[in-house]
Amino acid sequence: MSAPRLQVAAERPEAEAGAEAPQPGSFRIVSRIVDWITNDRTQLLNITERVNEIVRRSGVTNGIVHLQSLHTTTAIFLNEWQDALLEDVKAFFESAVEREQYYKHNDPNFSDCERSNADSHLRGMMMGQTLSLQVRNASVLLGTWQSIILAEFDGPRSRSVAVQVSGV
Amino acid sequence: MSAPRLQVAAERPEAEAGAEAPQPGSFRIVSRIVDWITNDRTQLLNITERVNEIVRRSGVTNGIVHLQSLHTTTAIFLNEWQDALLEDVKAFFESAVEREQYYKHNDPNFSDCERSNADSHLRGMMMGQTLSLQVRNASVLLGTWQSIILAEFDGPRSRSVAVQVSGV
Amino acid sequence: MSAPRLQVAAERPEAEAGAEAPQPGSFRIVSRIVDWITNDRTQLLNITERVNEIVRRSGVTNGIVHLQSLHTTTAIFLNEWQDALLEDVKAFFESAVEREQYYKHNDPNFSDCERSNADSHLRGMMMGQTLSLQVRNASVLLGTWQSIILAEFDGPRSRSVAVQVSGV
Repeated sequence: MSAPRLQVAAERPEAEAGAEAPQPGSFRIVSRIVDWITNDRTQLLNITERVNEIVRRSGVTNGIVHLQSLHTTTAIFLNEWQDALLEDVKAFFESAVEREQYYKHNDPNFSDCERSNADSHLRGMMMGQTLSLQVRNASVLLGTWQSIILAEFDGPRSRSVAVQVSGV
Repeated sequence: MSAPRLQVAAERPEAEAGAEAPQPGSFRIVSRIVDWITNDRTQLLNITERVNEIVRRSGVTNGIVHLQSLHTTTAIFLNEWQDALLEDVKAFFESAVEREQYYKHNDPNFSDCERSNADSHLRGMMMGQTLSLQVRNASVLLGTWQSIILAEFDGPRSRSVAVQVSGV
Repeated sequence: MSAPRLQVAAERPEAEAGAEAPQPGSFRIVSRIVDWITNDRTQLLNITERVNEIVRRSGVTNGIVHLQSLHTTTAIFLNEWQDALLEDVKAFFESAVEREQYYKHNDPNFSDCERSNADSHLRGMMMGQTLSLQVRNASVLLGTWQSIILAEFDGPRSRSVAVQVSGV
């Protein structure tokens, strides 16, 4: 599998809440929205470095980084970032929630959705759109083989992930 | 699908922890338990507005709202709240974890559970009973199509969700 | 099913972040790494008491305990801890993600992984390696039937879970 074709990773600065000039040990929250443009209907993007960069710049040494994709037909989760395994991951989604079966959401008699994306909704729901990870020593705590993966289930689209770093 | 028949949504005030009279920027935690009575064995309830109301009243402007259903045969997750799709969601649960197959938990030779609800446990476990969402500008951060859904897998029952809002 | 054969539950003290001598109401974070050695390829461990002990000793009365297994072929989730049900849970994993089918990750033509553990990765990904729970009254908030379960999908191995307690 080729590396995910990440075209855009724009970061929109947002409000910083908390103490204006935080002393060591004082609680603070830093929020960002990060955007990606996807190229395929089903696509996996490794967003680990982008998240870690936000954490490192946040000034938070110990705390939590919370990730929330703002789209129901996406998901965020952890797994090893290995080409062969990523193919298995995509095949798993295809078989766990089949695209080509009857869904009411895809039936114009019951739904005004024109994207025929019931499978995308079910995959996003099964995997979840949020992920909390610990921040230690001013970086994201991850095991050796853990990468943060954003899954696109109904691309190509522009996708936004809200990143919040909180702690001391 | 008709709207979920929400009969009761009682809110039990609980302890507020943190500064007595919080200054802007000081960390605070507000905790509540919200109850629902469900009507069907499998039922989906849209709890978005109830959660948002607690967040708005919490005094937290930026932070996290954590939701925890206190029952193993329930789940909390995000999805679009559309009647046709909700039918597909319920059909997905039926096929991902079939009710009518052999389970040890339903076998009186191995289990004293009289509810025959192994499928309910597996569905609740697969989907998860907790959800963390970001609080921004004193409300729950949600994408355009994201609703917070409480799933009942072994109703009718009375169900409690612990809601905790923390931040500044 | 016999109780999980927990051989080692070593706790490694780590840094405590936050105020040195926290006053009531001041934010604090306590971090620990807890280790287990597993005995079987698929194994379920009840880690509730171990987590609760860390919470009780943390000095945090209200807040969040965040659990993060540092391994992609494990998972952390809630369910009832009943022998018969635990057998059903293991059978569910076997059928939801079959071990004996073709995976690219297990194919030496595409992967240098020698563990043939694609199924373990997919099970860990499906269930998730993180869990946040509320802390109330200086202990983990859990419903009557909710236990915290660490699932091993590629044992026997040594496994580490990062536990972070934060709040006031």
